[in-house]
Amino acid sequence: MAKAKSKAKSSKAKSKPVMFERVAFIGIGLIGASMALAMRREGLVGTVIACARRPKTRKTAFDLGIADEATKDYATAVAGADLVVIATPVGTNGAIAKIISKHLKPGAIVTDVGSVKQAVVDAVAPHIPKGAHFVPGHPIAGTEHSGPEAGFAELFQNRWAILTPLPRTSPKATAKVAEMWRKIGANVAHMQPDHHDMVLAITSHLPHLIAYTIVGTASDLSGDLKQEVIKYSASGFRDFTRIAASDPVMWRDIFLNNKEAVLEILQRFTEDLTAMQRSIRKGDGKTLEESFARTRAIRRGIIEAKQA
Amino acid sequence: MAKAKSKAKSSKAKSKPVMFERVAFIGIGLIGASMALAMRREGLVGTVIACARRPKTRKTAFDLGIADEATKDYATAVAGADLVVIATPVGTNGAIAKIISKHLKPGAIVTDVGSVKQAVVDAVAPHIPKGAHFVPGHPIAGTEHSGPEAGFAELFQNRWAILTPLPRTSPKATAKVAEMWRKIGANVAHMQPDHHDMVLAITSHLPHLIAYTIVGTASDLSGDLKQEVIKYSASGFRDFTRIAASDPVMWRDIFLNNKEAVLEILQRFTEDLTAMQRSIRKGDGKTLEESFARTRAIRRGIIEAKQA
Repeated sequence: MAKAKSKAKSSKAKSKPVMFERVAFIGIGLIGASMALAMRREGLVGTVIACARRPKTRKTAFDLGIADEATKDYATAVAGADLVVIATPVGTNGAIAKIISKHLKPGAIVTDVGSVKQAVVDAVAPHIPKGAHFVPGHPIAGTEHSGPEAGFAELFQNRWAILTPLPRTSPKATAKVAEMWRKIGANVAHMQPDHHDMVLAITSHLPHLIAYTIVGTASDLSGDLKQEVIKYSASGFRDFTRIAASDPVMWRDIFLNNKEAVLEILQRFTEDLTAMQRSIRKGDGKTLEESFARTRAIRRGIIEAKQA
Repeated sequence: MAKAKSKAKSSKAKSKPVMFERVAFIGIGLIGASMALAMRREGLVGTVIACARRPKTRKTAFDLGIADEATKDYATAVAGADLVVIATPVGTNGAIAKIISKHLKPGAIVTDVGSVKQAVVDAVAPHIPKGAHFVPGHPIAGTEHSGPEAGFAELFQNRWAILTPLPRTSPKATAKVAEMWRKIGANVAHMQPDHHDMVLAITSHLPHLIAYTIVGTASDLSGDLKQEVIKYSASGFRDFTRIAASDPVMWRDIFLNNKEAVLEILQRFTEDLTAMQRSIRKGDGKTLEESFARTRAIRRGIIEAKQA
């Protein structure tokens, strides 16, 4: 295992006790790397261990000072860790939980960052041994970029981190994870896992599905037309391409693991789109104008909520 | 009619001859105001006349130094104008052309900025008198804000202005409008009107329709859920709300006047969305991942084309 000491960390560590002596990140992509950088900056962590399958990912995490140690071995990564952050595509979380469960130290807190919560709870919770604590979580933050090199410490500033603790989750462990999120800039909310999944199906999963679809529709166009779509993308399309540049495996897993909520909200959207289509076909300007006018209120709400 | 002289204009005007002594803007919203400000900054114009129905719009255009004169009367606005820019929702363009046609000075150039070109050509061209020149145009630029107060001179910087001149349009007039666009920062392209409408149906009209629809779907949610959608909008949804905050009347007219192209591309999109839906329902991760991976190439094209 590669080892190093970051100067920033050592100096901060001396000044006050850290929240977590050892933090293991299983997966060190955009979210994991940003958390590690933010926790280091705030002096919350002694040693950061990154666990990643690909040598290139481990090297990047190490070279950029995101992690002090990098390994591909789950057992080595979580051994002695006070906090384990599972930050891989949600479809892998159950298998990872099963492997690490035997190596968690007593009192260890396990959390995750997945965009789906019920399926993750169902897959991970059964593997968490007595004496360890599982605090399911999801920071509402990200960019279209992937990998540890995309991480930055400010990613969670003024964003929401949603925790969906189980009835049996230790309130102390939940409070500690909440405190960590607040210290790295996020606001913390609590929710039921299935409710989280419905809210996210609307605010995130459906928008991504639609963006992927429309960009796919455009990439099926003939060569000349496709080139023109790229050239004149500033008229609305490019915003969709940004969303549709997000990590494909991460998003595959989200749709496979939040199927019901996504299909339900997709059904409503499709009905509404069919109504729009009918209004256009009939030349019903009154209905179109009314539909377009009422959506401005939602935008105002977002600006007022400082999430714009 | 209100009159004023802007200092910026007079000083520039002295240094070199202007391109257009008098420019009349029929409609002085985001696009018209931005053009006026940019043309003033570059010293291209002697006097700017704004024609607007609402007293508040006229006052704003005048107070902000966008226009030297403001009137609600079309005849007064275009009298003696070397360039007339029609910058109102496209559904109004035919009626406006009919009214102003009797008052255009010989040699006057009429252009427009509509997001639909074939319908505008069909509605406007028949009214343009002999000796005047119609150069249909469309700058691919904008924001979600409306009104003269939303205008800024840099709006067209590194954006495309598409001209769709008719076979009978004077090449000299087309060249002059092209030069004006280049001087205020835009790149100029030429296209057939119906081809423009298909490209824009994909890059702009469908994305806006979808954004309006999804934000509408969200605003139909029950009160609590709707509040949460606003609160957690940073996860993708808010990008749609920005697009869906655009001017409702302008967009109503675009859909009514580019019906065929929009319905055709909407049909393709709906088929693709249905295929995505089926993959999710069947749990077909392979197809989902492949669909999500190929859209990254389009994003790369946009970044390379410097339109990101």
